[in-house]
Amino acid sequence: MVSRATLASVSESELLGQILPMFGGSPYAGAGVLVPPGDDAAVITAHGSVVVTTDSMVRGRDWRDDWSSGHDVGVKVVAQNVADVAAMGAVPTGLLVSVAADPATELDWLIDLTRGIAAAAEDARCPVVGGDLSSAPHGVVVVGVTAFGDLQGRSPVLRSGARPGDVVAVAGSLGWSGAGLVLHEQGREDPITGEGRGRHLGEVDRAVSLLLWFHRSPRPPWESGPLAALAGATSMIDLSDGLVRDGARIATASGVELALDERALRRDFLAGPIEVALGADAGWPQVLAGGEEHSLLATFPQGGVPEDPSAPWTVIGTVLAAGPEGPRLTVGGAVPSVTGWDHFAG
Amino acid sequence: MVSRATLASVSESELLGQILPMFGGSPYAGAGVLVPPGDDAAVITAHGSVVVTTDSMVRGRDWRDDWSSGHDVGVKVVAQNVADVAAMGAVPTGLLVSVAADPATELDWLIDLTRGIAAAAEDARCPVVGGDLSSAPHGVVVVGVTAFGDLQGRSPVLRSGARPGDVVAVAGSLGWSGAGLVLHEQGREDPITGEGRGRHLGEVDRAVSLLLWFHRSPRPPWESGPLAALAGATSMIDLSDGLVRDGARIATASGVELALDERALRRDFLAGPIEVALGADAGWPQVLAGGEEHSLLATFPQGGVPEDPSAPWTVIGTVLAAGPEGPRLTVGGAVPSVTGWDHFAG
Repeated sequence: MVSRATLASVSESELLGQILPMFGGSPYAGAGVLVPPGDDAAVITAHGSVVVTTDSMVRGRDWRDDWSSGHDVGVKVVAQNVADVAAMGAVPTGLLVSVAADPATELDWLIDLTRGIAAAAEDARCPVVGGDLSSAPHGVVVVGVTAFGDLQGRSPVLRSGARPGDVVAVAGSLGWSGAGLVLHEQGREDPITGEGRGRHLGEVDRAVSLLLWFHRSPRPPWESGPLAALAGATSMIDLSDGLVRDGARIATASGVELALDERALRRDFLAGPIEVALGADAGWPQVLAGGEEHSLLATFPQGGVPEDPSAPWTVIGTVLAAGPEGPRLTVGGAVPSVTGWDHFAG
Repeated sequence: MVSRATLASVSESELLGQILPMFGGSPYAGAGVLVPPGDDAAVITAHGSVVVTTDSMVRGRDWRDDWSSGHDVGVKVVAQNVADVAAMGAVPTGLLVSVAADPATELDWLIDLTRGIAAAAEDARCPVVGGDLSSAPHGVVVVGVTAFGDLQGRSPVLRSGARPGDVVAVAGSLGWSGAGLVLHEQGREDPITGEGRGRHLGEVDRAVSLLLWFHRSPRPPWESGPLAALAGATSMIDLSDGLVRDGARIATASGVELALDERALRRDFLAGPIEVALGADAGWPQVLAGGEEHSLLATFPQGGVPEDPSAPWTVIGTVLAAGPEGPRLTVGGAVPSVTGWDHFAG
């Protein structure tokens, strides 16, 4: 029988009694957590410095309940934060979770969210060390995560270090989340979990399912961040607002031109699931400007792109000295017409 | 002319361009911020470990716009978090701020919030090192803060270290925030800022104004936390849910009885503004159970209470071995009938 209990039907201590054990598994065995949840604050180890970042998701803005489960939301909010830690070249060491929720929220949903957070945290080898639960107005759920990271004695990899002659490379996919969003907006049903499940899946079915799933619960290549730092990456950024917008941030911060290779982008990122599911014309803008991908964009000295097969980097361009137009990003020699994502844009 | 611009009327980058400089003052001169806001994540120094905690405020739940300004909310959300860091015996080293807001929120309100956050952060000698801005549904504003602290090589002061024979002491006030909440709920106007401003203020006026103000923007005795740790405090907690509830947490975690002295509490905490503004009968429950005070409760070995005049501690009881009733908190030998605050209680 399905429980229909809400947050309001249990006390705060009962609620925490259900949630905290989900975070109490193997990650706590790690020596990095000196004081676990339960006191005024948690204490984690830090070697000289600590990388800190925060990112939130809001119901109805950053996810829709008819598309995403609580588990999906939990995975995604952890992914966003772990990607930011990785983009500094750091290894994730801990997470704080903050939930503000309507007391009428179903307890099952919160437990599903918690499971998603715990699963993504375990995947990132990163314990949840504390959190905060607040009540919110009717219908509102806001999930915030703060992530911590350890540079292991290295310098952070900033956006400002790209130099002319460097190579531009991506770890992870491009445009999958944006393409998945388009498919969700088209009302496309997941062929694996939807009404038609069980039938033979063709190539299009598999591509559609992959992209829908990736939009709801991305998996950033977080291991690639520290490996890039070890390999001498000169700059790095988490791709949350799209390749064009985030790449331009590196160009601006470094005072250079990021000259991306259109043929390489089409061959390595458009061909495959995006072209199969959306076609080339609808898919290409997603490769360039689709948001919430959480792949990593970095620059390396010539010959310095790491070849570790567990954390692959794909070369997509070179760094040029800024021309008379100033720092910018170009694709095939031209500034692309697509832009990226703005949270408060109409 | 008053600006009526909303968040939706400016772009995300314009918005951050207005807000970030408010955090860019003297605190950044501190050597503790290795990478300031503007990259994927911030980096702050940490000596072997870092204390981390998070706490949020929700419009309509944790504050009312007709009582609290944006500035008040900013001060209070920083205070809550800095108090948790101090309660571990740590010095605050950095803050992350996360705001999820209806795009129709007035820009002036957000700027006022930012000023309050910056003022409290500067008071705590604690730079704002980053943040996150999300759009939220109609009417919703959620402000979350994560605070970091440095133990300066000391062990954290936990809730579990109180030992029979220790002395129980408080740094800061008791019941002011709860009494201020009662006065707000009675519709009492602030005699200093309200309609009658300018007239001669009597003792009651001054007490009412102080308590209303303290409820809206508490100032935790954060300096007392590290000083208590240096002095050998055996346990410590931030008083966010009231003396009785939070004191019982120390008793339970330490397996002891916290035996509080009713006469000392009445003399040192009821007498004064609370008794003047509310009377003894209505004021006493606030001393025992009023929430959101963010004073510090600690236990010290006999003779170990620090006497630093800048961070005064007031002795309010002793620690006894737990009796047959198990760990508990008593006032004048009896378990008090008042309890404390539960976020999801009906």
